Amino acid sequence: MRISPRHPRYQSLRVRAGLVRANRSGLVVGEGLIAQGRGEAFDYLLGERSTPSARRAERVAAEWLRAARRPVLSVNGNVAALAAREVARIVRADPHIAVEVNLFHRTPARARQVASALRRAGVRSVLGVRPTARIPGLPSDRARVDRRGIFVADVCLVPLEDGDRAEALRARGQTVISVDLNPLSRTSRTSDLPIVDEVRRALRQIAEYLEQGNASGRPPRRRPFDAHRARSEALDAIYRTLRRSATPRGSDRARR
Amino acid sequence: MRISPRHPRYQSLRVRAGLVRANRSGLVVGEGLIAQGRGEAFDYLLGERSTPSARRAERVAAEWLRAARRPVLSVNGNVAALAAREVARIVRADPHIAVEVNLFHRTPARARQVASALRRAGVRSVLGVRPTARIPGLPSDRARVDRRGIFVADVCLVPLEDGDRAEALRARGQTVISVDLNPLSRTSRTSDLPIVDEVRRALRQIAEYLEQGNASGRPPRRRPFDAHRARSEALDAIYRTLRRSATPRGSDRARR
Repeated sequence: MRISPRHPRYQSLRVRAGLVRANRSGLVVGEGLIAQGRGEAFDYLLGERSTPSARRAERVAAEWLRAARRPVLSVNGNVAALAAREVARIVRADPHIAVEVNLFHRTPARARQVASALRRAGVRSVLGVRPTARIPGLPSDRARVDRRGIFVADVCLVPLEDGDRAEALRARGQTVISVDLNPLSRTSRTSDLPIVDEVRRALRQIAEYLEQGNASGRPPRRRPFDAHRARSEALDAIYRTLRRSATPRGSDRARR
Repeated sequence: MRISPRHPRYQSLRVRAGLVRANRSGLVVGEGLIAQGRGEAFDYLLGERSTPSARRAERVAAEWLRAARRPVLSVNGNVAALAAREVARIVRADPHIAVEVNLFHRTPARARQVASALRRAGVRSVLGVRPTARIPGLPSDRARVDRRGIFVADVCLVPLEDGDRAEALRARGQTVISVDLNPLSRTSRTSDLPIVDEVRRALRQIAEYLEQGNASGRPPRRRPFDAHRARSEALDAIYRTLRRSATPRGSDRARR
């Protein structure tokens, strides 16, 4: 069905249709579509824009990535389908950030599909297509990583990550930067730097801050970040949306 | 992947796995999986249980259905995949409620699949497999209904309905009882009786109230219902979850 540009949720519906296509091609799994829906609900409650708090988190994330020795950006099917261009822009801005395919529902074919989507968007080198190491303490294929990538990374940027994996990385002493629209998720609560924002906006803004960092010529420094405060600010944004949306009695009827 | 019963979200993960299977078989569309995710997020925020307010709405819904001349229960792919047994129980409790297949993304094959799922669960008569009328003012296939069913119904129970369709039914003067976990959705705002609850819980409880109504022998009466208040109470429940979840500083770290 064609989506009318006049539909009140045109942008959201377009993204949705793209993901459904990516599911048909096998890039995105069914569970990934459900996860997208959960994200949509929280994005709606956050006002469907990057809050000032999320912007600050994205700026600090760029600093941490620049300051890292071995930073890795972890990419799953949803990230590849939604934000391959943004991933490519991040790597252009800072080529010392490695990109690794990291799948919860892994098959060799899907790993290759994710890598292809990234290469088409301009990412030259993609790790993790044939995993060479395991994260200890994680059952099943979810543990499989690249020994040149996530296995040895000091800073992992994990957009749309699963809670168990985020915890396993933290348990190994790796620094976790998450992108997750649910400020209450285990991933957001585990993360050293929880970015509570939509993945395309978040990665685009991190890329911009990386570019600005390069242009400034200043050496990066690892500024402290208050993860608890960032999550509280996201909850406050949700409160405000709910308060705004709880229209006074009768006004709905008038709008119909 | 097998889901461990010890996983903190076992129940939710099982439902999710069932829907992904229903998507593979064609019963549930990709858009339906995304919609499930949106619902999951709101159910999480509502505490994943029926609030006292939702219970009251379900009790009134049963009364309205009993009091209706031509009540119809509208079933789409997600409802068939999630709650076919609950639909069957409702019709057993009150056989004058008609069941109609009502698809946003309609193909003849999917309509037959929904009907089969319902029949397997024990629903004898299913309308809407071959639509015979149109709801005016709605574009495309979404308007197609059965002239013995939704087209002439006085009361429509529409679980997981689309906002445009809920509005089109209201515009025809039909009474709309919705089941939608988002109290701010257009469907919930349009509905005469918005039930803000998970679809299986909601339909199960409506069936129970229908059974109790039969057992009581009392004639049904159409009690008034304050839709605005029901939605406000759902928002209050979300507020409470958010407040409870916003753990004090440091407690997350202790729990890890």
